[in-house]
Amino acid sequence: MLAAIGLLDAEDLKILQKELKTIYHEIKASHFNIEAGVEDVHSQVELLLTQRLGEAGKKIHSGRSRNDQVLLDLKLFIRSEIQKTVETVQALFHELIKLSEEHQNKLLPGYTHLQIAMPSSFGLWFGAYAESLVDDLILLQAAYRISNKNPLGSAAGYGSSFPLNRQLTTDLLGFDSLNYNVVYAQMGRGKTERNVASALASLAATLGKMAMDICLYLNQNFSFLSLPDNLTTGSSIMPHKKNPDVFEIMRAKCNKLQALPNEIAFIISNLPSGYHRDLQLVKESFLPAFQEIQSCFTMATFMLQNIIVKENILDEDKYKYLFSVEVVNNEVLKGVPFREAYRNIGLAIEAGNFNPDREVHHTHEGSIGNLCNQQIQDAMATTIASFNFEQVQTAIAKLIAE
Amino acid sequence: MLAAIGLLDAEDLKILQKELKTIYHEIKASHFNIEAGVEDVHSQVELLLTQRLGEAGKKIHSGRSRNDQVLLDLKLFIRSEIQKTVETVQALFHELIKLSEEHQNKLLPGYTHLQIAMPSSFGLWFGAYAESLVDDLILLQAAYRISNKNPLGSAAGYGSSFPLNRQLTTDLLGFDSLNYNVVYAQMGRGKTERNVASALASLAATLGKMAMDICLYLNQNFSFLSLPDNLTTGSSIMPHKKNPDVFEIMRAKCNKLQALPNEIAFIISNLPSGYHRDLQLVKESFLPAFQEIQSCFTMATFMLQNIIVKENILDEDKYKYLFSVEVVNNEVLKGVPFREAYRNIGLAIEAGNFNPDREVHHTHEGSIGNLCNQQIQDAMATTIASFNFEQVQTAIAKLIAE
Amino acid sequence: MLAAIGLLDAEDLKILQKELKTIYHEIKASHFNIEAGVEDVHSQVELLLTQRLGEAGKKIHSGRSRNDQVLLDLKLFIRSEIQKTVETVQALFHELIKLSEEHQNKLLPGYTHLQIAMPSSFGLWFGAYAESLVDDLILLQAAYRISNKNPLGSAAGYGSSFPLNRQLTTDLLGFDSLNYNVVYAQMGRGKTERNVASALASLAATLGKMAMDICLYLNQNFSFLSLPDNLTTGSSIMPHKKNPDVFEIMRAKCNKLQALPNEIAFIISNLPSGYHRDLQLVKESFLPAFQEIQSCFTMATFMLQNIIVKENILDEDKYKYLFSVEVVNNEVLKGVPFREAYRNIGLAIEAGNFNPDREVHHTHEGSIGNLCNQQIQDAMATTIASFNFEQVQTAIAKLIAE
Amino acid sequence: MLAAIGLLDAEDLKILQKELKTIYHEIKASHFNIEAGVEDVHSQVELLLTQRLGEAGKKIHSGRSRNDQVLLDLKLFIRSEIQKTVETVQALFHELIKLSEEHQNKLLPGYTHLQIAMPSSFGLWFGAYAESLVDDLILLQAAYRISNKNPLGSAAGYGSSFPLNRQLTTDLLGFDSLNYNVVYAQMGRGKTERNVASALASLAATLGKMAMDICLYLNQNFSFLSLPDNLTTGSSIMPHKKNPDVFEIMRAKCNKLQALPNEIAFIISNLPSGYHRDLQLVKESFLPAFQEIQSCFTMATFMLQNIIVKENILDEDKYKYLFSVEVVNNEVLKGVPFREAYRNIGLAIEAGNFNPDREVHHTHEGSIGNLCNQQIQDAMATTIASFNFEQVQTAIAKLIAE
Repeated sequence: MLAAIGLLDAEDLKILQKELKTIYHEIKASHFNIEAGVEDVHSQVELLLTQRLGEAGKKIHSGRSRNDQVLLDLKLFIRSEIQKTVETVQALFHELIKLSEEHQNKLLPGYTHLQIAMPSSFGLWFGAYAESLVDDLILLQAAYRISNKNPLGSAAGYGSSFPLNRQLTTDLLGFDSLNYNVVYAQMGRGKTERNVASALASLAATLGKMAMDICLYLNQNFSFLSLPDNLTTGSSIMPHKKNPDVFEIMRAKCNKLQALPNEIAFIISNLPSGYHRDLQLVKESFLPAFQEIQSCFTMATFMLQNIIVKENILDEDKYKYLFSVEVVNNEVLKGVPFREAYRNIGLAIEAGNFNPDREVHHTHEGSIGNLCNQQIQDAMATTIASFNFEQVQTAIAKLIAE
Repeated sequence: MLAAIGLLDAEDLKILQKELKTIYHEIKASHFNIEAGVEDVHSQVELLLTQRLGEAGKKIHSGRSRNDQVLLDLKLFIRSEIQKTVETVQALFHELIKLSEEHQNKLLPGYTHLQIAMPSSFGLWFGAYAESLVDDLILLQAAYRISNKNPLGSAAGYGSSFPLNRQLTTDLLGFDSLNYNVVYAQMGRGKTERNVASALASLAATLGKMAMDICLYLNQNFSFLSLPDNLTTGSSIMPHKKNPDVFEIMRAKCNKLQALPNEIAFIISNLPSGYHRDLQLVKESFLPAFQEIQSCFTMATFMLQNIIVKENILDEDKYKYLFSVEVVNNEVLKGVPFREAYRNIGLAIEAGNFNPDREVHHTHEGSIGNLCNQQIQDAMATTIASFNFEQVQTAIAKLIAE
Repeated sequence: MLAAIGLLDAEDLKILQKELKTIYHEIKASHFNIEAGVEDVHSQVELLLTQRLGEAGKKIHSGRSRNDQVLLDLKLFIRSEIQKTVETVQALFHELIKLSEEHQNKLLPGYTHLQIAMPSSFGLWFGAYAESLVDDLILLQAAYRISNKNPLGSAAGYGSSFPLNRQLTTDLLGFDSLNYNVVYAQMGRGKTERNVASALASLAATLGKMAMDICLYLNQNFSFLSLPDNLTTGSSIMPHKKNPDVFEIMRAKCNKLQALPNEIAFIISNLPSGYHRDLQLVKESFLPAFQEIQSCFTMATFMLQNIIVKENILDEDKYKYLFSVEVVNNEVLKGVPFREAYRNIGLAIEAGNFNPDREVHHTHEGSIGNLCNQQIQDAMATTIASFNFEQVQTAIAKLIAE
Repeated sequence: MLAAIGLLDAEDLKILQKELKTIYHEIKASHFNIEAGVEDVHSQVELLLTQRLGEAGKKIHSGRSRNDQVLLDLKLFIRSEIQKTVETVQALFHELIKLSEEHQNKLLPGYTHLQIAMPSSFGLWFGAYAESLVDDLILLQAAYRISNKNPLGSAAGYGSSFPLNRQLTTDLLGFDSLNYNVVYAQMGRGKTERNVASALASLAATLGKMAMDICLYLNQNFSFLSLPDNLTTGSSIMPHKKNPDVFEIMRAKCNKLQALPNEIAFIISNLPSGYHRDLQLVKESFLPAFQEIQSCFTMATFMLQNIIVKENILDEDKYKYLFSVEVVNNEVLKGVPFREAYRNIGLAIEAGNFNPDREVHHTHEGSIGNLCNQQIQDAMATTIASFNFEQVQTAIAKLIAE
């Protein structure tokens, strides 16, 4: 772009591009260090260029500020990490759908108020978390869209007197569009991180809730699920313990991630417009969040591949009341008004005369007998396609190859 | 729908629909009360139907639970309030664009680290907040999309033995699609509110930051903006005071809204799946949030219509250093490498010999001389169109008219 | 005080004090309104005095600003509400100790990782929450101490040119001491509320955790506790439901209270020193918090007075592993090194040969057999005495009576 | 203690104590590693003892669980870190008092609503932050008190069948008292950290606010303060920049610390009683918080030692309105009712006839002319004494020496 606007001549462009690619490969091969006294990666690259190419190396900083360079780095990092995150989410999604199909006929007590309520099933339970991930990715895609805009050229947040071609860098780097207004481009710092963190928090909330359910279902009073011994831990004083530490740590990590948007908002809130060094501190908590959430999803997928589902749970006597709604509804289908049927069954329960058929015939969309997993998979596929990761990959591939 | 699946005969359907519309018009005319001892609006409607139509009235509860009714109400409320919110955002957006155009040539000091940095302009400053609102609405649209899905038929969160046609209620109510899995539909309670609140928080962050800037610019040490006396307040002890209370309260309300997603997350976090009464408490803070944010936007639009922009700010001597980058860049354009030009100007400043031309020639996209307000307006128009509010309005109009 | 420093003559003082007491009694009798157009309670009182006494009425504002008056009101309100809160905490504390004593010999499974771990007891469980309240009140007392300091005389946050005697108002109003520095006095606004809210949050955390335990123990898979029917609620579709709504709403309210310090911090964070109107908004959430927490404690006390504790819980076969540590320790007491005993019992459990004696002999401080409830009650008494509520009550009584 | 209750014989006690002291000195000399495959520091110590002393080494685990050991470690760590924190706070406090005294006669504009309000002074401004630290330490002392209680003997949270003497370990370790109830002792995990974090957050709020003020006062529109060049940073594109990065990073770190109690509360909220592995994750954010806050205080002290205070600020014409209250009050002192004097001066300001004497005669407690720094120092001394750090130091010294 600098060449296109006359700030680099053709010869300098050629040797700079060649050397930048050399440095890129040195970085890939882990032969790159930020030397003592050099401020950051951008300065180190400029230093290497100048050492190797002389004057030409100094020219690459024209029209840029550390501010928009760091903003750009953040955007590139976010794009790449969101893509990796989506991949780990997709893996768990497929495992959940698989388990939902496999265990669709195994019934489970459904609770409301943590009280025995109505029949549920493992098909429903696994499928619910799968569908939750679809909505989470819709939110993440919006965060991706506001991230995937080019801030380059905003310099220190007030633009530049150079005749930069910002659309050109936007296209070269595969961005959807620009952060047009340079003051807004700078304002995106902190705002972008918080909104991406909010989307990650929604994913974390889904996974954390699933971990909470699993910890409960592994408890001996429920015993709906179990784990092979090698996926549990023991106790230093109780020889009988098999603890589900993996799900507890997953739950805690997910809860911690839910606190992240709030932490970022604290750092940036009530700062007037314009860059403040405070924004640098956001990185400390934000950057590792991707690794955290990806590891949680990867671990969840692995654990679910090994989880053991209990059969015939509803045979226990305490679960018979789960069927009271079925019996009421059957009366209604025979023509009894709902309110009357409800009262009659209530009296039977009170009198100890309630002995229901333990059959469940649910047929409507999304119910035990009609899970709609295909529709949920279609929604997931559409959502993932909407990220359009190919556009970025094509642009980056072109940049590196050229 | 109940008629379509045989739970209501044609005669009952006819009289029930007629009476429900009568009740709808009674509510519109404020002739509706929830009587003492009646639990909620749904029970009151059922009571009125039963009083007026006898047995037929009792039949409308079939296939429903208070749980999915309240979930449905929340979704309808959110849809409607998001639309109203978007309208108030749009009004402020247009005012900001208008002011950006009107004051595009008035320069302003740009600060980084709250230190005098580079020239900015009122054109940039107003425009930046306009563009920020575009990104906020992209996030709100995602929250709208996950809200605009039909939970009806999920009953208490485990579905129903009635052969409900959930796609039919989805179409009748103008939803985009279903929350398919009934366990997930119930899980949407709390999750939906938190994610909508996160999107509102992003709008609030934009507005709160603008209010912070304005409070600073109204301060006498800056004096970049002023307000007519009738939009300020006085002090009980200081006769000279003209306080910008409106922007302070706006800032505080916006900061409070930023705490809302965290508050909701606290109420729902670590609850196992299935309904808990805790979820009811979310309404207490969530429902008023729309009124709060809408009033903030409406007030901001009004205040900006009356705000007074100072001219010739940069004539003051202390602002001359703003032009140091211009001077450096001009040297670069003449062929001096950036690092050298930077050092030379630095030495001139140090020596007290820095007397720049106070001209700014920024031409690239999004800079002082090329605001790209048209592109920002196009992005806003595209974003608002993507909500597709017409679909909902058409469906509701049809329901009421039929 | 104004008279003491010569700003009021003796005659004015006499008639003003008489009339202020009349107004006080009018307020007590609910014969007091803030008229339309009058800004707040202080202006209304001044208006009444001026209407009734003429010029003298206008003199009471000397040396004050609305800022320090509102600060003072907040302090008086906080003192009074903390005292009421402590009373409701004390009531629950006594109920918990009573239940701990009453049920001290009823065993309960103790869980770690939500897995069956070691024997616990209702004596321990009730007593734990009692002791938790002691620590919560230690924190509340610190918040009380920083609140119980006199801001009067700080005016708008920069003091006054009147020769005010701030120690005199400190004594008259029963404060512990002054907020000396007037700039700090003003800074206390927001800070005080947040720190009091943090202490209330600690109380709420204790109560919320207890409510979570109770909801779990009322669940049919645990069934350690039950409630009389009249303290549960039903379902609109499930005739068998007895839901513990009171504890769910309590838990939610307690979780919401835990979000309050964060909300207040958001409103005040990054505001430069000096009053900002933003601070007013803190009242909106802070003032009702006391009513919320007091009602939660009062409700908890009532519910616990009616709760039913299950007997012989540990007779069920699944609980036998609770006794593995007992058996290991008995081996140790016979001289087997701990690590060896642990391994032996582990092997017996693995082989299905573990049939322990279900006896528990814990004797150390704070264990099942030695609850130390007396020491806990002593700590509570000491903590409550340290608030020294009498000092305030004596001063206020004197002011009203004089 | 194990010897006192007969679980260790005199010979074993002697060799174990000797070896433990050897290990203590090895740790001090950095000759200690947790070997691969060893779970934590406790296991490593036990391993060393067993390797060196044989059977006796295995006996130290009797009556303990990893749970109460980690709890104990946390308490010991918190006690020690709070003491170090108090020391850094004290250093800043003394610097603030020193600066307040030194600059007590230098006037500063006082702002309300960020509008010019009344005269303030550097004496008041520095002193305000000093006094704020006193209240913060009152809160920290309460957090210290609830931390300084002995959890040892609670084992996995349900006590032990060994006849432990918990009072003895309480005394040996210098604790104030016990967490009596063993279930409560375990509940302290997470609760303790959150409450300590809340107290640190209050300190952070004071320091963060001071940093915000300083960033504003260093801004060229205020210019009340300046920094020597070597304590500022430059810009990669603007040769004139002197940025106050240290205060910005301090502000950001303080804001981040204010988010910490909320983060911890998220991890622990809605967990039923009993240990959960989630609690381990609290350490990740909590342990470094002390280092963060201590470094912020140390850095603030250093920076303030070098800060440059501007003289004669109020000579600028724009500041004359600061004196309007003085003039009103002087009228009042001459007998004019306050409301009338207020109106008169207001009219003079409106008419441009307001030319006040720029003299300030404030004499009441805590005002410009009477800072009460001595009383503030006395309050600080009393607060620090109330921690009673000597008790802990004496006990620990005795343990190591014995």
